[in-house]
Amino acid sequence: MSELLQPLLLGDRAALARAITLIESTRPDHRAEAEALLEAIAKTKLSTKRFGISGVPGVGKSTLIEALGMHAIAEGERVAVLAVDPSSSISGGSILGDKTRMPQLAQSAHAFIRPSPSALHLGGVTTHTREAVALVEAAGFTTVIIETVGVGQSEIEVADMVDMFILLLLPGSGDELQGIKKGIVELSDLLAITKADGDLLPQAKRVEADYTAALRLLPPRGHGQSPKAITVSAMSGEGIATMWQEMQAFIVSTQGNGWFEFNRTQQNVAAMHTQFQSLLLQTLEQSEAFIQERNRIEASVKEGTLSATAGARALVSFLGIARNV
Amino acid sequence: MSELLQPLLLGDRAALARAITLIESTRPDHRAEAEALLEAIAKTKLSTKRFGISGVPGVGKSTLIEALGMHAIAEGERVAVLAVDPSSSISGGSILGDKTRMPQLAQSAHAFIRPSPSALHLGGVTTHTREAVALVEAAGFTTVIIETVGVGQSEIEVADMVDMFILLLLPGSGDELQGIKKGIVELSDLLAITKADGDLLPQAKRVEADYTAALRLLPPRGHGQSPKAITVSAMSGEGIATMWQEMQAFIVSTQGNGWFEFNRTQQNVAAMHTQFQSLLLQTLEQSEAFIQERNRIEASVKEGTLSATAGARALVSFLGIARNV
Repeated sequence: MSELLQPLLLGDRAALARAITLIESTRPDHRAEAEALLEAIAKTKLSTKRFGISGVPGVGKSTLIEALGMHAIAEGERVAVLAVDPSSSISGGSILGDKTRMPQLAQSAHAFIRPSPSALHLGGVTTHTREAVALVEAAGFTTVIIETVGVGQSEIEVADMVDMFILLLLPGSGDELQGIKKGIVELSDLLAITKADGDLLPQAKRVEADYTAALRLLPPRGHGQSPKAITVSAMSGEGIATMWQEMQAFIVSTQGNGWFEFNRTQQNVAAMHTQFQSLLLQTLEQSEAFIQERNRIEASVKEGTLSATAGARALVSFLGIARNV
Repeated sequence: MSELLQPLLLGDRAALARAITLIESTRPDHRAEAEALLEAIAKTKLSTKRFGISGVPGVGKSTLIEALGMHAIAEGERVAVLAVDPSSSISGGSILGDKTRMPQLAQSAHAFIRPSPSALHLGGVTTHTREAVALVEAAGFTTVIIETVGVGQSEIEVADMVDMFILLLLPGSGDELQGIKKGIVELSDLLAITKADGDLLPQAKRVEADYTAALRLLPPRGHGQSPKAITVSAMSGEGIATMWQEMQAFIVSTQGNGWFEFNRTQQNVAAMHTQFQSLLLQTLEQSEAFIQERNRIEASVKEGTLSATAGARALVSFLGIARNV
């Protein structure tokens, strides 16, 4: 068994950081150690809460997560912040989970911040984040916040790995302007309008009222809770306690009606499907016979004698999946 | 052979629309007919140009594409507009490729507009768009414009299926505010600052100058062209002719140095890989033995006796891929 297991379970932060690096590694021996570690900790039943927090760049995710995290710590929580940033695989860097933007949390003994791993493909980022959640929870962090950008596919993937999904909105702009699609609002269990202070306060209150009205029109959710819109200011601190209370109330209520457990189980099954797909492709990449056949087909596609579609079909036929299983 | 082939090759728009519907269908018989059709048209060598145009909601994609498309038609082109909108699979609808937002193009006999298919998963949308490009080209459309939203993964996928990728930017906001990541700018062969008219003109010119300076710092590209920043106004028409000229110059120059052909070949090979993956998974979904084993493993994951990771590994082992190939 990995020598990281014991210190990890004792909450050793260096061991935790090393364990996360291990799951992000592509080296087969690292991967084997990581999986053994994940199996070992899978047995432990832990009482934890997982929140997804999303919003477009500029909405103030880092400052809000810092304020919220410090509040949670004051309430006795140990807080881990993980980031999922699909764009970091393009740009090679991420501003999510940036420790310099969360200076108080970064210094707290009760917090753990981990930026998004860069240069991993999208599916890889989410698989690793899911595994990182298991690790931080095993290390005793009771509240896990997964931060993501409010644009595109990553919200759906984050919503699929948390107990509650929260969308941050800027005061005073329509959702088209914020790049927020209706579908993302529908994923959200709580809408928080940020920067509700000073000159922006009246606008924030107006946006809150607009969304409160709009949310009433949404169909009921599986968890039985009606999403709310609230205003919050990381600067003044106004609304932070309320936001935290809303988050607790949601968890308590979904634990009461059974949704919480049901949802986690469903998420686990979905994660198994996703991981199966990426593992299958990885396994193929290690097969010499497969690579040879693929090279042969690629050559025909390059020459133009075979279309991409026909080449794909030929390669699937080569595997003989349909016959063997 | 599909009865659609002949009318499609003659440029019959109804046949084209039906052929695209066919490739988007999930019915196996439709899919078989679609693939036969794609094979039949794959043999034809056509002289076409493929442009990707991206930008955040509100940047004025539809109006610019309309102005640019009408200009291209006046220059003798036949213009097809296809849309890739990953968010349409969330929201169930798309504002891209919306005919009502391109009223002139929608009425032109020399244009064909196709909105993004909704309710398909992201990979599905791009595969189908790639196939739709082949169909519109076979039907005699010489300029294909693929429209996408300027946020996230879809740009990369669109950049991977076009000859030239163009990013639209709003005048007077930094790229973080526009949700544009550095990586997207690096993908772009041309930056066009939109709405360069009236009060916004000076701001647009300033943004043009900023990007012109910034683009000089980027590493040289494989195609040997230096990306430019230009200003354009769909309203006044100013810059439309210049933009079209830049697009032609890029194509001519990359055709001259061999990049154009090389790039299309590489794109074809990459498309084969992508389609292989989705076809492989589809084939598995049709195997009863596989589904049974997956159900068995799922049950253990639900009970909590097996982690998602271990379940995924067990399912890959069941396939015996590594042994068979």
